This record gives sequence, structure tokens and C-alpha cells, in this order.
Amino acid sequence: MPISKSKNLEEAVAGNGLLHRRVFLAQGAALLGVGSANLLVARPVHGQTTQNLPPWMRAPGEGMRGYGSRSRFEEQVQRTLNRPTGTGASRTPLEHLEGIITPNALHFERHHSGIPDIDPGAHRILIHGLVDRPLIFDMDALSRYPMVSRIQFIECSGNSRVAGLISEPLATSCGELHGLVSCSEWTGVPLSILLDEVGVDPDAQWILAEGGDAAAMSRSVPMAKAMDDAMIALYQNGERLRPDNGYPVRLFLPGYEGNMSVKWLRRIKVTTGATMTKDETSKYTELLADGTSLMFTFPMEVKSVITSPSPGLALQGPGLYEISGLAWSGVGRISKVEISADGGATWGEAALSEPVLDKALTRFRMAWQWNGGPAVIKSRAIDETGAVQPTRDALIAEKGMNFAYHYNGIQAWSISADSQVANIYA
Amino acid sequence: MPISKSKNLEEAVAGNGLLHRRVFLAQGAALLGVGSANLLVARPVHGQTTQNLPPWMRAPGEGMRGYGSRSRFEEQVQRTLNRPTGTGASRTPLEHLEGIITPNALHFERHHSGIPDIDPGAHRILIHGLVDRPLIFDMDALSRYPMVSRIQFIECSGNSRVAGLISEPLATSCGELHGLVSCSEWTGVPLSILLDEVGVDPDAQWILAEGGDAAAMSRSVPMAKAMDDAMIALYQNGERLRPDNGYPVRLFLPGYEGNMSVKWLRRIKVTTGATMTKDETSKYTELLADGTSLMFTFPMEVKSVITSPSPGLALQGPGLYEISGLAWSGVGRISKVEISADGGATWGEAALSEPVLDKALTRFRMAWQWNGGPAVIKSRAIDETGAVQPTRDALIAEKGMNFAYHYNGIQAWSISADSQVANIYA
Repeated sequence: MPISKSKNLEEAVAGNGLLHRRVFLAQGAALLGVGSANLLVARPVHGQTTQNLPPWMRAPGEGMRGYGSRSRFEEQVQRTLNRPTGTGASRTPLEHLEGIITPNALHFERHHSGIPDIDPGAHRILIHGLVDRPLIFDMDALSRYPMVSRIQFIECSGNSRVAGLISEPLATSCGELHGLVSCSEWTGVPLSILLDEVGVDPDAQWILAEGGDAAAMSRSVPMAKAMDDAMIALYQNGERLRPDNGYPVRLFLPGYEGNMSVKWLRRIKVTTGATMTKDETSKYTELLADGTSLMFTFPMEVKSVITSPSPGLALQGPGLYEISGLAWSGVGRISKVEISADGGATWGEAALSEPVLDKALTRFRMAWQWNGGPAVIKSRAIDETGAVQPTRDALIAEKGMNFAYHYNGIQAWSISADSQVANIYA
Repeated sequence: MPISKSKNLEEAVAGNGLLHRRVFLAQGAALLGVGSANLLVARPVHGQTTQNLPPWMRAPGEGMRGYGSRSRFEEQVQRTLNRPTGTGASRTPLEHLEGIITPNALHFERHHSGIPDIDPGAHRILIHGLVDRPLIFDMDALSRYPMVSRIQFIECSGNSRVAGLISEPLATSCGELHGLVSCSEWTGVPLSILLDEVGVDPDAQWILAEGGDAAAMSRSVPMAKAMDDAMIALYQNGERLRPDNGYPVRLFLPGYEGNMSVKWLRRIKVTTGATMTKDETSKYTELLADGTSLMFTFPMEVKSVITSPSPGLALQGPGLYEISGLAWSGVGRISKVEISADGGATWGEAALSEPVLDKALTRFRMAWQWNGGPAVIKSRAIDETGAVQPTRDALIAEKGMNFAYHYNGIQAWSISADSQVANIYA
């Protein structure tokens, strides 16, 4: 599956119409030149150099508001819920978003006993256990410690299970299949600072983090991670956390399975070993083909998905399109994303939108000249450690069909001659 | 005003308690060590190693929703409007935000005839004038062109006028004084691609951009900027633009005065010279002391402001605090931010939060050991071109008091012995 090179931006770099990635670089686009019949998708006007005045220009518009909302024409863009209400999961509609930031209102949710309505004035975090001096932090105290900000993803370890680990491909959207991943700018206090405040016993190798929801959801975290890049997060995309993502404070563990970034954080206990809570023994373990289970598989794997075109977003007939998608890895930066438009026979390198950040969603793009015939498009991500996103077949051969967590197989979309896009196993 | 250096993180690097910026670097915080009396702001617990169960843990919480909202305890965080409703400006409450991303609901607004309610299915952009072939782009056509994403600020050129150009300092918040600036991840089609599609006449040196609001707000833009990094923006922080920021499509000109990033974009006319519209002659020009005016002062200047502590956010008595703020420049990256806690006598270098991006808000932070006495804190930004944020006195000496736009003087906050923070001229 060689990647061919081309100096001509309009020349295909892989089979079935994939164009050179320099089309997407800042200045490269202009190099395409005037009159490219490949690009033209707008409507020529013959002699028309004025426009009719639309109704919204005939009278002053709406006034200002203290906290804005989106257009009524966008209300169909919603998270999808796995049940009508109550505890469960809601998924980010990846196919309707662009860039790498997920708006807070569309960040995925996973609750084990619903969303608590916490009064920040009454909320406290206790840090105790194998420490020199247990301490209680209220929100005012936390706000005075040094903070850091980072743009990073969070992904539920159960994400994409329904995209690969059921017998027949589900006829549903990209977000329904892969939307338990979102990306935000998180701001908060490094956990290492607070652990230094309490004074950690040298024998302590783990912490227990407990949430303030009715499930008291709790997970064990290795001390090395707690002292590395773990954050006590207070802000998400500039404003305070939303209730569905842990208001007023959550643990945030970059790159680790989302469930460990305990929401509504109320307690950290410093311990010698893992606590073996209900949430890390009965759940969040990977059942293998031989009947044994993997525990404590913390970092999320290298992964990618094409968000457009994708099921539900029909094409408009043959011509130029942008293939756009997201790639991420729990162990570092994305170094490359390759795209195939011929079912994996040949691959071309996509452009990555800056900034390409550590443990963040990374937006990739590629121009595609669709000839109107049936096509199968796929993306394949590679991270800075050299890890390559595997095929579904390879993953199932290794782990069977029941592992349920950490599925990161390559996603294929089929495009039919009548412009429809569908989820397939290929 | 020398900047002293210190290898001891807890040692002051400038007068009146400013601590070394390495306190804020990823691993540096842990170097502060156990038992630093400087840091301790949490409450010790004596013998208490359990917590009372709060009410929100006694019953399951709320269910999921398709489009989330913030906590009822955060509803006081609002944009501030310069009049109750209607046309005008609303300002981002900078003092309540952290990081660099502004949530869309809190992005500043400036309207000249209210917010139009545009049906994206009926909206078009016409590109005409000195072109080979005029074209009309609907939203479906735009979505097929190559896109780019960038995290960049937008600032109204009238921002901070009320912070420096009135006779007495206003007793109000950081957001009321400086909140006509916000920062988002913008995604859209490079304007250069669309201009190449229509074929620009070699004699054309400008474009006119016209909005689809009832004011038909319009500005002239040099062709060099249009062909450089100008974007036809469709997405803001992942989702489609909000109506108050140009839904369904706006022009975005990184670093240029915000008014030129024409919202609700409906027309681009390619021209030989500037069009001299009402919005660039009667407004958005700088009246100088000698009675002449500066026109077409496009890039926004290097600037910074401390967002915390700031007026309305009282301190909690002597002890450790984080000084946190924002810096930006319309011509490139921020290279350094310096902070003074003694009214400008001595300055220490703040830590900059990654990523530090071209024409983006940049978050700076510094640890401060407040001794409880009266203090005056200031920040001063320097960008990669070497431009240094000026003092208010220097700006007024140069331009007088009536220039009204592009004010970027250093902001001073006073802190009183009773922990109150106030806007002062100093």
C-alpha cells in the first residue's frame, strides 16, 4: 500500500481521486490556480451583479443577551442518548462539528447515577490516607493554587464498541458509533501540587479518586500518573465545568480511559495498592477470548475516524469534496493520518490542522475528486510512538469479539453511486 | 526596571512578592516541595478522614440531554450589555473565565442593527466586481471546499476605550473595561481559494465585504490580506457560528480590528481602491489631537490585562495567590509578559500557558505572595516583533484623549489592605 507523491496539487496521490494534502496548507490553496474545473462547485451568475434584499435585511434584528444561544436552524444538532433519560451515555454528533474543540453543550456524557446538582459553596475535596497531614480543599482554596491549561481529549473506554464488536454493521451515524470522545481546553490545578501539600508517604503507589454522585463512582490511579500530568480541573473551554462533566470539579487524566477522570471529585485517598472498586472490577475490564480479563488498561489507543463524508451526510453528486476527520492517541501526538478511497488498496497522506497537540483531537483533511462510482473510504492514524491504528480483522483476531473496551479498529464508509454513505465492515 | 532571576522557586523575582514563573511549568510545580508554608491555603483536618454524605449523593441525579447547559450556580456569569437591549455591544466577562477559549455564549458582540435571523438554506454569498466570472456560493457549496481551522482572537477596535480614555478611572470590572475581545477556534474556507475561483483582475487591490444585517455593515479590505490568511468562517469552537457572531457565515481577518470581520457575509466585491463606506469614514477612524484622523489602522496592537485578581474579585487576606491574565497581538505571537506588584518599579516574567499561538489570546500566570499591604499590580506584553505594550501616559502624550480606537495602554489594579481590587490610573 505505497503512498505516491505528487508535485502537482491537482494530481491524485492515491487511488480513486485523493488529491495532494498541500491543498490544505495555508498558502498552498492559492497555488491551485484560477480556473481549476476540479474545484468549481459554486453557481456562475450571468450578468447578475446585485442581490435581492432578504427579509432579515428589511428590519433591525434581535437585541443582545447576557448568555447567547445558537440559531434555531441548528437545533437538530444534538447529542444522541442511549436511552430517553436517566443514567447512561450521550454521544457527541461528530459528523456535525468541525475543528478540534467540542462545545461544552455537545461534550459526550457518561453517568453511573445521573448528574448531581452540586452547590459549589458546599463542595469539598478531602485528601487523606497515607499522607503527612490530611487536608480539605474548598473551591475558594483551589482557585488560589497555580493552574495550568491544556487542550486535550477525553474518551470513554467503551467508545466505538458498537462500531466494531457486533456481528453486523449498524446503520447509524458517525457520532452514534464513535461519539464517546470529545476535546476541550481544560484548566485546573496540577494534582502534584496538592499531593505535595498533604505530603505523600514514600510507600504510597496509588490513589483512589471518588466522585460526589449517588454512585460514588471511584477508580484507582497509579501514583506516577497522579504526580505527572493529572489535573484537578475547574474550567472547560473557558467557563466553569458543566454539571454533566463534573461541576464544580473533576479529576482529569490526559490520555487515560475517560471513566478514570472522576467527575464531581470529592475525595482522594493515598494508598499502597489499587483499591479494586466496583467500577474497575465489574466494569471497565476487557474480557478476552480465553475467558480471562485485562484490568487497568489505562491509555487510550491510537485511532481515527472520517467525520465527513459519513452516514447521514449524503454527497451532492460527482465532483470535489473535502474528506475531514479526527485522529487521536492517548500516548502522545498524532504524527500522520493516511486516507484511502479505494477500500485500502492505496493510501494518501492527509493534511493535519495546526495546532497538533499532545493527547488532543487532531483534525485531518484531504481533497477528494469523486468520480461518482461506488467507493470505500477509510482513515488510519499513526502516533508519535509509531503505533498504527489496526484493522478490525486484526483486532478481533487478537482479542476476540467480547473485549468491549478500547476498540480502535479502522472505520470504513461505503459511498454508493446514488451518493449515500453507509457504515460497513471492510 | 530590571528582571531579577532566581533558582529558588519560592524566592521573589520582583518586588512585593512575585514568585518564579517555573512554579507554573508542567513539572516545576512539584519542585516546590512538601510543607511549603507559602502554598498552604487548604484547611487541615485533625483526625477527620471521612466526610458527611451531601444531599446530592442521596438520590440519583438528573438525566441526560441532547444539548447541555451550565449549572444554575453559574448563571451570574453574563456578558455585560452597554444598553438593556437592541443594537450595541456586549462584553465578555473576562474575570470569570480561564484558559484562552471563550465559550460561544460569552463571546463579545457588536451589532450595528441587531442580530438577523438568517435561514442558511436561503443565504448566499455573491463574489463579483473585477473578476473573470462572478459566482454565487450557497452554504452547501461552501462546505465542499478545502477548510482550515485556527485558534485566534477577535477584538473590537473600540475595546478598552473606557479603560483609558476618560478622565477618571471607571469603578467597574475587567470585562466591562476590556471585554470586547474573545478567542475561538474558527473553521472555514480560505478566502484566497474562492477569489481564485472567480479569477481576480490583476489591477484589483481591495475588496469590499458586506454583511446581511439591516445596516448592511461593510468594510474595505486590502487584497493582500484577502489573499493571505482571510477566512470565510462557518464554525466557531466546533459548532456552526452563533447568530450573534455571523451565522451562517462571516469573514474572519486574523489580527485585524474586529469590525472588518464582517458578520452575516453576503457579498464580496473586488475593487481597485477602498470603497469608503459609512462604516470606515464616519466610524472606526482615530481622531488625533491636531484634529486629523487616522484611517485604515487595521492590525490590533500588543496588549495584556490581568483578569485575576481584578475589580469585583476580592482577595481572601494575605497569602499565596495566582495572578492570571490574557495577552495578545494582532501581528503575531506573544513572546513575553511581565508583571509588576509594586506599581511598575520592578517586573518579573510570567509563565505562558501552551499553546502560544499566532494572533491568539495567550494565558499568562504568576504566583504572588501577598503580604497584606496596599499594592498596585500591572502586566505588560511584548510580541514577537518586539512591540511593547505602552503606558497610558505615553499613549495619551502621543495621540491625545480622543482617538477612541486601538487603545492598548497598560492596566493598573490597586489592592487595598482590606483585600478590595480597584481600577486606577497609575
